[in-house]
Amino acid sequence: MRSVAIVGCATTKFGRSDKDVVGLLAEASLAAMDDAGLDGVRFDDVFVGNMASGEFEGISGLANLLVSELGLEPASAMKVEYTSGSGGAAFRAGWIAVASGQSELALVAGGEKMTSASTKEATEIIASLAHPWEKAQGVTVPSLAGLLARAYIARFGATREALAAIAVKNHSNGALNPNAQFQRRITIEDVLNSPVISDPLRVYDFCPITDGAAALVLAPVEAQPPAEKSVVVSGIGAATDTQTLQERADVLRMASVRVAGERAYRMAGIGPGDIDVAELHDMATILEVVESEELGFFPPGKGWDAAERGITKLDGPLPINTSGGLKAKGHPLGATGVAQIAEITQQLQGRCGPRQVEAGIGLACNVAGFGSGSIVTVLRRADHG
Amino acid sequence: MRSVAIVGCATTKFGRSDKDVVGLLAEASLAAMDDAGLDGVRFDDVFVGNMASGEFEGISGLANLLVSELGLEPASAMKVEYTSGSGGAAFRAGWIAVASGQSELALVAGGEKMTSASTKEATEIIASLAHPWEKAQGVTVPSLAGLLARAYIARFGATREALAAIAVKNHSNGALNPNAQFQRRITIEDVLNSPVISDPLRVYDFCPITDGAAALVLAPVEAQPPAEKSVVVSGIGAATDTQTLQERADVLRMASVRVAGERAYRMAGIGPGDIDVAELHDMATILEVVESEELGFFPPGKGWDAAERGITKLDGPLPINTSGGLKAKGHPLGATGVAQIAEITQQLQGRCGPRQVEAGIGLACNVAGFGSGSIVTVLRRADHG
Repeated sequence: MRSVAIVGCATTKFGRSDKDVVGLLAEASLAAMDDAGLDGVRFDDVFVGNMASGEFEGISGLANLLVSELGLEPASAMKVEYTSGSGGAAFRAGWIAVASGQSELALVAGGEKMTSASTKEATEIIASLAHPWEKAQGVTVPSLAGLLARAYIARFGATREALAAIAVKNHSNGALNPNAQFQRRITIEDVLNSPVISDPLRVYDFCPITDGAAALVLAPVEAQPPAEKSVVVSGIGAATDTQTLQERADVLRMASVRVAGERAYRMAGIGPGDIDVAELHDMATILEVVESEELGFFPPGKGWDAAERGITKLDGPLPINTSGGLKAKGHPLGATGVAQIAEITQQLQGRCGPRQVEAGIGLACNVAGFGSGSIVTVLRRADHG
Repeated sequence: MRSVAIVGCATTKFGRSDKDVVGLLAEASLAAMDDAGLDGVRFDDVFVGNMASGEFEGISGLANLLVSELGLEPASAMKVEYTSGSGGAAFRAGWIAVASGQSELALVAGGEKMTSASTKEATEIIASLAHPWEKAQGVTVPSLAGLLARAYIARFGATREALAAIAVKNHSNGALNPNAQFQRRITIEDVLNSPVISDPLRVYDFCPITDGAAALVLAPVEAQPPAEKSVVVSGIGAATDTQTLQERADVLRMASVRVAGERAYRMAGIGPGDIDVAELHDMATILEVVESEELGFFPPGKGWDAAERGITKLDGPLPINTSGGLKAKGHPLGATGVAQIAEITQQLQGRCGPRQVEAGIGLACNVAGFGSGSIVTVLRRADHG
């Protein structure tokens, strides 16, 4: 397999958009091509990450629509759907295409237009990713997060404030990201006084409904002129876990995150201690905590404490979700996995302005369903030891 | 890239099923695993081809649901959506994963459950793959096929009977395929007297609404014990064309089929004259004609004549759609591309019973949208010169 470089990346502004999903994907793609300094290029492959344009907007055939919108014919194309992990899975498909030598230049674009549906409709569409057995019990994704938070607090003695601290941190980071949906700082009290969604979790523990897209341009490292700031995919891993929580040996473990992480670390030849910055899938605050444990950043049951002590803040030793995360940047389902990789790429390139951290190696963790699948990617600055 | 073998394949019965799409996919997958002689295996990757389980059944997260149903965790997984080309695109993703060395054993399963929707709803869902500009004019996929047939007849002097002959041939082949939806022979008169759908095309020119699934097991050739009847992927190509017909230089040319075919032939080191048997994407009779020209089997404007003269019949020099094709076997959108490859595999292995033809090299052509994307695969029997 060849080494693959990310030669261009971009995201749209996340939030509420007047564009449809095709317009969002095209905007991000053109910006990523511009970022790569490409003009009139011919892509071999186009991968689109999207969960539910059919349900949200009555649009299918997204891969062809994007190719057509950008005039990229006769590139090969496909859409990858992996619920909230669609972007990460599309990135992995693009990486395999380029790494294998099948593709010399690939576009990976992820996007979702969610505000065209009402909140109730959107909740229904998102709930369709749950197992029919769980769905039949009225389970929605937020309710699973509530169960997890309750169990976590009970077993590990975590404080409610520790979870709130994650929302506060991610809002603080989002306030420094012009493309984030929320650019307003909040306090612990704001979180604790917000309406209950799924006890003990409240409105401010959850990511919002978001429109947005992100795009990456991938090419073999060998084809690129050596550049100090070029970013290389040094590890990637994907794995599945059971679809229902009831089948998991331990409801507080996310095996798909752990296995995908192990696979990515092994490929990169590194361990968790080598990661300088990470984007995790904080659909709810509790998930950032559990994922940070599964990825080996903190021991099991200690993630909450690390968050409360500020370890994962912008100026801490391991900044997590510098972009604002799903919580504050927003979570356009199919865009998220791609946007996470765009954020890490820009952090490694030193292009993040007021939210810039010092980093040579970064990690992105994109989760499908409620932990039923994960894709973990490790990126490295080419000039980093 | 490593050489990839198809070590197991299966399809469900096509038609109307009581199972949901997950049940159909699982049935086909278990049969393909059984066909491969696998027991308690660990797949590295699972690729699911499906267009619209969300719209048809309110089910998303299909890749995880299938993994969970079969207990294949922690395999990597993703769903590939490429409208009616979803199965072919999923196969290509699986092929790249194994060929690249990323995966030692991959499952590719395609399926669709369509009869849960009314015919009107299904037509709406399928029409969502058209470009919004075309859709706004009331365009549906059958209406595009009618336009194409009218233009083809006008320019090339084709007879209406020639198109009917394709439906008659495919029904005749379907009658020999126990998994085909229609197992009833029809006559030219049946076609010409059937109700008009999109003039000059009639009911019997079109594929039906179908439930069904198909699955393939892929492994590197090097890992397989040499077997006389093993089947190898010798060429694969994918390409896109403009989404709208109005943007094409010639409405009667399908550039995505031509370019995908050229790419597949080049990789296989062969030409159209080397193909012994083919499965084409006959969503409507006219499409089998045009595709047979784009793939170089017949000169432009001569495909209809070849069909009328019986060249493509089971006992002709180039049998096309021995399975019954989309027309008679049925067209469960996401299943089709996988089922086509299963049919070619079984033909090369001599396992097709009364519809068996003599073949060492076969081709499958799966089309997305109305020619906006195509995947062409060339398969070869390992012992074939």
